Amino acid sequence: MAIAATEPTAVRAFGPGTALSCRECGERYELSPIFACGFCFGPLEVAYDFGNVSREEIESGPKNIWRYRSLLPVPDNVAELPNMNPGLTPLVRADRLAAELGLSSLHVKDDSGNPTHSFKDRVVAIAVEAARTFGFTTLSCSSTGNLAGAVGAAAARAGFESCVFIPAGLEEGKVVMAAVYGGKVVAIDGNYDDVNRFCSELIGDPAGESWGFTNVNLRPYYAEGSKTLAYEIAEQLGWRLPDQIVIPIASGSQLTKIDKGFQELIKVGLVEDRPYKVFGAQATGCSPVAKAWENGHDVIQPVKPDTIAKSLAIGNPADGPYVLDIAQRTGGSIEHVGDDEIVDAIKLLARTEGIFAETAGGVTTGVLRKLVREGKLDTEAETVIVNTGDGLKTLNAVDAGVTATIKPSLKAFTEAGLA
Amino acid sequence: MAIAATEPTAVRAFGPGTALSCRECGERYELSPIFACGFCFGPLEVAYDFGNVSREEIESGPKNIWRYRSLLPVPDNVAELPNMNPGLTPLVRADRLAAELGLSSLHVKDDSGNPTHSFKDRVVAIAVEAARTFGFTTLSCSSTGNLAGAVGAAAARAGFESCVFIPAGLEEGKVVMAAVYGGKVVAIDGNYDDVNRFCSELIGDPAGESWGFTNVNLRPYYAEGSKTLAYEIAEQLGWRLPDQIVIPIASGSQLTKIDKGFQELIKVGLVEDRPYKVFGAQATGCSPVAKAWENGHDVIQPVKPDTIAKSLAIGNPADGPYVLDIAQRTGGSIEHVGDDEIVDAIKLLARTEGIFAETAGGVTTGVLRKLVREGKLDTEAETVIVNTGDGLKTLNAVDAGVTATIKPSLKAFTEAGLA
Repeated sequence: MAIAATEPTAVRAFGPGTALSCRECGERYELSPIFACGFCFGPLEVAYDFGNVSREEIESGPKNIWRYRSLLPVPDNVAELPNMNPGLTPLVRADRLAAELGLSSLHVKDDSGNPTHSFKDRVVAIAVEAARTFGFTTLSCSSTGNLAGAVGAAAARAGFESCVFIPAGLEEGKVVMAAVYGGKVVAIDGNYDDVNRFCSELIGDPAGESWGFTNVNLRPYYAEGSKTLAYEIAEQLGWRLPDQIVIPIASGSQLTKIDKGFQELIKVGLVEDRPYKVFGAQATGCSPVAKAWENGHDVIQPVKPDTIAKSLAIGNPADGPYVLDIAQRTGGSIEHVGDDEIVDAIKLLARTEGIFAETAGGVTTGVLRKLVREGKLDTEAETVIVNTGDGLKTLNAVDAGVTATIKPSLKAFTEAGLA
Repeated sequence: MAIAATEPTAVRAFGPGTALSCRECGERYELSPIFACGFCFGPLEVAYDFGNVSREEIESGPKNIWRYRSLLPVPDNVAELPNMNPGLTPLVRADRLAAELGLSSLHVKDDSGNPTHSFKDRVVAIAVEAARTFGFTTLSCSSTGNLAGAVGAAAARAGFESCVFIPAGLEEGKVVMAAVYGGKVVAIDGNYDDVNRFCSELIGDPAGESWGFTNVNLRPYYAEGSKTLAYEIAEQLGWRLPDQIVIPIASGSQLTKIDKGFQELIKVGLVEDRPYKVFGAQATGCSPVAKAWENGHDVIQPVKPDTIAKSLAIGNPADGPYVLDIAQRTGGSIEHVGDDEIVDAIKLLARTEGIFAETAGGVTTGVLRKLVREGKLDTEAETVIVNTGDGLKTLNAVDAGVTATIKPSLKAFTEAGLA
């Protein structure tokens, strides 16, 4: 740390990152591939010493997340390294959806625009740089699908071996996208929580040596990638925080990191300090955080997921308690919607805005609608929702198909009632 | 025209566009929804009166194709209108693929980053603006799949009705993506050329009144969207034309418009005038232009397509003769590869660069490899290939799947030979 601070011309492997810090007890550790506090077993996260960060520097940077490298634990020269370079996805002004729901200002942060079409490219991009720095040769992960594709692609681009672990029975689009990059894809008989436990076991085994698990032993770095969603939303709103934001919850990490990103922007003076409300969205079939919120608990009761929103099907969400804190602190809430409402919301978003979201996006849009219906959102306030993935990966969730099949003639066209 | 030129403060509906001009005989027409010359039946294209266009103006513009609005037939205020806002997709430095093929400099223009994950969002974005200006209320098209999705999404965003026509038997991903936005999707018993003929018939019928067919009666505007690929490639290379470019051929429109875009950049002084070679890529199972090139013909003999590259399966490519001219003029060539090579090339691109292309991208990558093998490309020259679409839409073309399915234990992991 001291070296990096006094010799700013040398490439700093973690940029402004200075240490790992325990989220529970505050104990600090050297930046290394560890993820849990040796004293209290709390999760570790990256601590920073931010220098002077200006809007101008960011705006003149790369058209991807590396424009925010002064706020991320990545090498100073990250933009020159082989990486998927995700980010700067569209913030879509959703006037037609807003009108249909009775909102005066709504934007959709559409992260299906990332290279493998989910927000996971953001977190993996940071993990890849940490893996490179630590000398890992294989990239790995436990995944509900999107992460597996993001890791497979990023490993291919950066020249790592890869081996990803998914629960058996995932959507075809997610399996093919994980496998096509040439790495290993191992299906585990069980759900995501079983996959995750297995990966933790593998890390302690010699078989897992030299493996960087993006969301396990690289998790403190990986998780920081989600902060870039917050940075982009604020920059795309004209360097302003939204009044209200609705974010899907799987592990809860994304929601906590978006909040962290907003706080950092305030801290370094890039945006004005003003109140914002954070709302979390879950599928009813996997809603442990929403249930805890409903019941006023601060402990999350794990559940066995049963929902079409497989990318959110984490029954034991690690960051659940932090999510509850943030909803409480900001005056938001955590809601859930059932599978039918998810499908209906996917179609609503597609029909009004031309955005084809995966099931997770249906959850977020469905919860947005529910929040409006129940009077929990301020319909006059500036609202943002986050679409984290792409409908092409969950095709079977929607029953859209051809209206009619006809012969190529005007007669057939008319007779089919299409004229 | 005169009005637009003398009152620059008024919004010009077609920006720098001044007329339609026949590509064959040069006859000029008012900007209107027509597509063929009344005298010689030649195709019409937009003529321009470009003003002063600077790199600075472009670089400070929107992060999508509207940064080039001074070179496009769109309203001056286009960036404020509801539109999918495609473009500024990544130009990926493909060092690992280059190394594998023995090239010193290779970039992939990856257009799967567009909103509906194909280059069709570019052309549709321009057609939508023309449809709005002409007062059409329904957006339509004949499509091999990608265009149907792009039209469905754009119509939803911009508030048009939509009805798209596709050949029966398209890939599921393309059908669902066309249908999910809530418009009509009509499958035609026949191939793309049958669909196209039917659409031309429908335009002349009262049933097609108030319909804007993006690639038929709006084709002169629509086609201009492909020029933005040329603009972006040049800007992303640092305002420089590449030495060599490989482009897939369906109707041939994209290739001719990329060439047109390069020529315009030279004309307005945004890049240096230097030689570049244009190479065209077809699938062997639909290679009428490559066959004409091989045989030294300047007339295209239509074929009945039979290839997995359905998005390129146009047996009677309208712009084929222009493609031959451009390959001839620039010193390039037109090549084709078979279905096995297409699949192999999809995997090659995925394995080396983390880009999962649809079959059309396999054709381009396969032809790139063939050109190198046959000594037709300069391996020392700066080369760009265009990936026009996304592998998620043609999942069945690749046989990628899980490596193994195991129980969640180290024992099972080891026994499966994965350790």
